[in-house]
Amino acid sequence: MLTPKLQMLERTLKRLIRRGASQPLENVLAKAHAADLGYLLPHFTNNEQSQLIAYAGDDERRAQIIAAAEIDVAARLLEALPRDRAVELLQYVAPDDASDLLQQMSEEVADELLQRMRGEERDEVEELHRYDSETAGGIMSPRFFALNRDMTAAQAIVELQRVHDEMEMVFYVYVVNEVEQLLGVVSLRQLVTTKPETTLFELMTSEIVSVEPDEDQEEVAKIASRYGLLAVPVVDDANKLLGIVTVDDVIDVLREEATEDILRMAGAGDELAEQEGVLKAALSRAPWLLIVAVGGVVGAALLATYSTRFASFIPIVSLVPFVLGLSGVIGLQGATVMTQRMLVGRLGGRLWPSVLSQSVIGLLLGVLFGALCGLIFWIWNAHLSAGPPNGLSLLGASAALGAAVAAAMTLAATVGALLPTVFHRGRVDPALAAGPIGAIAVDLLALLAFLALGSVWL
Amino acid sequence: MLTPKLQMLERTLKRLIRRGASQPLENVLAKAHAADLGYLLPHFTNNEQSQLIAYAGDDERRAQIIAAAEIDVAARLLEALPRDRAVELLQYVAPDDASDLLQQMSEEVADELLQRMRGEERDEVEELHRYDSETAGGIMSPRFFALNRDMTAAQAIVELQRVHDEMEMVFYVYVVNEVEQLLGVVSLRQLVTTKPETTLFELMTSEIVSVEPDEDQEEVAKIASRYGLLAVPVVDDANKLLGIVTVDDVIDVLREEATEDILRMAGAGDELAEQEGVLKAALSRAPWLLIVAVGGVVGAALLATYSTRFASFIPIVSLVPFVLGLSGVIGLQGATVMTQRMLVGRLGGRLWPSVLSQSVIGLLLGVLFGALCGLIFWIWNAHLSAGPPNGLSLLGASAALGAAVAAAMTLAATVGALLPTVFHRGRVDPALAAGPIGAIAVDLLALLAFLALGSVWL
Repeated sequence: MLTPKLQMLERTLKRLIRRGASQPLENVLAKAHAADLGYLLPHFTNNEQSQLIAYAGDDERRAQIIAAAEIDVAARLLEALPRDRAVELLQYVAPDDASDLLQQMSEEVADELLQRMRGEERDEVEELHRYDSETAGGIMSPRFFALNRDMTAAQAIVELQRVHDEMEMVFYVYVVNEVEQLLGVVSLRQLVTTKPETTLFELMTSEIVSVEPDEDQEEVAKIASRYGLLAVPVVDDANKLLGIVTVDDVIDVLREEATEDILRMAGAGDELAEQEGVLKAALSRAPWLLIVAVGGVVGAALLATYSTRFASFIPIVSLVPFVLGLSGVIGLQGATVMTQRMLVGRLGGRLWPSVLSQSVIGLLLGVLFGALCGLIFWIWNAHLSAGPPNGLSLLGASAALGAAVAAAMTLAATVGALLPTVFHRGRVDPALAAGPIGAIAVDLLALLAFLALGSVWL
Repeated sequence: MLTPKLQMLERTLKRLIRRGASQPLENVLAKAHAADLGYLLPHFTNNEQSQLIAYAGDDERRAQIIAAAEIDVAARLLEALPRDRAVELLQYVAPDDASDLLQQMSEEVADELLQRMRGEERDEVEELHRYDSETAGGIMSPRFFALNRDMTAAQAIVELQRVHDEMEMVFYVYVVNEVEQLLGVVSLRQLVTTKPETTLFELMTSEIVSVEPDEDQEEVAKIASRYGLLAVPVVDDANKLLGIVTVDDVIDVLREEATEDILRMAGAGDELAEQEGVLKAALSRAPWLLIVAVGGVVGAALLATYSTRFASFIPIVSLVPFVLGLSGVIGLQGATVMTQRMLVGRLGGRLWPSVLSQSVIGLLLGVLFGALCGLIFWIWNAHLSAGPPNGLSLLGASAALGAAVAAAMTLAATVGALLPTVFHRGRVDPALAAGPIGAIAVDLLALLAFLALGSVWL
């Protein structure tokens, strides 16, 4: 999934490392973007990674490259370095990123690195450590630009020039009172385009959207996105400003959560990073599979019960994978469409029309594929001398089977569409409806409908 | 999925509309955030929506509310208004949003609205219409802040004050030459914190990341995210600056694509918006279901073939839903984990260890659930007087069945993990491996393994 440009960069770097060509390696590294190098890091072996870092300019740039990599890749790389080197690089990483990196390491290493960090930076990181890493407090930066309400625009600009180097991203000036309570916000542009003697208090917007430090990071991202904010202030319950969540963190959260949602839907929760180990992955999947297994046993009981009826006419039982395959897919589609509509706030008061339209889609496709199934059944068995049971004609039996398939698919589409709402009302994550639990529920009901109708009609 | 605050706002508004209490309605609308009102719009009936818009302050605010709603909701609302009202509101919407809105309307209405727009705004929108709506050109804003390289920082600030109102979001000053070719970029902060007489040419960063107008919007979002940009410049092949894609558009794209990815995975492509109609939805799903149906027919043939062998011992065939359920889920999990690792650039050169770990997970869970299956089979059949075929003891048959389940699950996990790579190499979207095609492929192979091993061992 690399662009041609990145593929070329990867190949060049690998070749230069293999040849031990240190001068050309330094040149190529100096010209490449730190973000590209960080993105490519997992494509190199541990040994190659150390070489890349060693030849990549100064420590500030090394830290940029590491911070640009996926968090677990970066943490593993830092863990592999001598402790004092790791600490030197960590000093250049923004406190919120440094805090995340330490949380990805073994507790022992994290503690050792933290003890060796400089006082002020250690305090910042330890402050962030107090909050869960997936909350506003865990992802906020403690380096915001807050000024007293009585300052003028001109004074604020002087102050901005003074703090210049410490703050990477200044979008807003936060206006506070003597006890650091958040009063309002002034954009950098307002500051530049107003009369120099205006005070911040006069200039500021006091309608301000803020979050508490224990707010879920996904909620913070939604707020930033909905209100078009470049930074969301985080305040404690006395309205004291603690930090800001900036738009780059919001983008990271959105990307992270999109991936997490898809994995959670499949019942494969935290398996993106590989170092977790197969045993842990297997254990976390086992409960989902157990639910499916219980469903499978019920299915087996159903099939065993009905099989004795159909024993003389095996082709009906043979159609079970056909019915399960089609019902499973159409049920999954219904569940996915409804879940996504819920997530983007589309359903509103329109739940039932939405479910009904999924049922109609199920019915339309059920009739189509039921007819196909009946046709295939008819052709398949045309040569059989023994007719179907119950004295039905082969044509009648084919039609009955097709109708059973159509019914099963309509039911599957309806159940799939209903599950996310049922889950939501029962305080279960609706996304699970499009995963293993939803799949087995849809499978069982479709199987029951198919076998029950088949046994009545045939 | 509304927060309590939004639920309350919705209820209050509905009550005031029902009571026809226009003054309180105006007050509540004036105090609410435009973004919240836009988000809530789909929760109201068409009639309620018209009332909300009518009582919501001036036209600029009305436009803000409409622009904050999901694009298809906003387009439907504008289509329902008298043409001249719709045009008045559209003038207040940013050109890139206005272009998107027009593309969501029927061609007739869009043309009529476009003809009635003021000259300059119409030109901007028509320029954007030239590009596909999911490309950089389709989402870019033509209102960027570009200045000649010979201007000083002081002059640039004066210029910034002059254009103040037209540009909502100025993050960067783009530095161009006489023929509007992009030379470099200066951040607003650099501008404020430098000596007033410095020229933009001296100040600018010339290492600039830009995209062409036909670049896919998802790629633009990735670039903004990877390089931490607040705006990505869009240039033509002569390097002339055409527009910028700002961070708020990037966030919209990321959210949109996350939803689209999940729907596409399920083979339910464009079904988020409902007005598309069930027939269109059914038609777009039919090809996926046809593939599943073909797989189902192959499965039926397999089962029919092997059933004759097992005819005397129905419980084996009854286990088919059990095997398909477990294999399906573990195959889906393998495909999902591998697809997401590919998407976030985690796999690198480590494809095989990653696949192997999925196989091992499949084996571990296969042994666990195979043993469970064997145990249940043994208990279930303990009362049967007729033993299993081939003179096997019941215990031996149970063990053989359990081993067949374990083999099917291991195979399913491995195939699921391999499919995304196979798809990618064949230039098919890897995400489809976690959808219907992947499901039927995994089902068929697991079924074959189970039946073939079962028939050999039993």
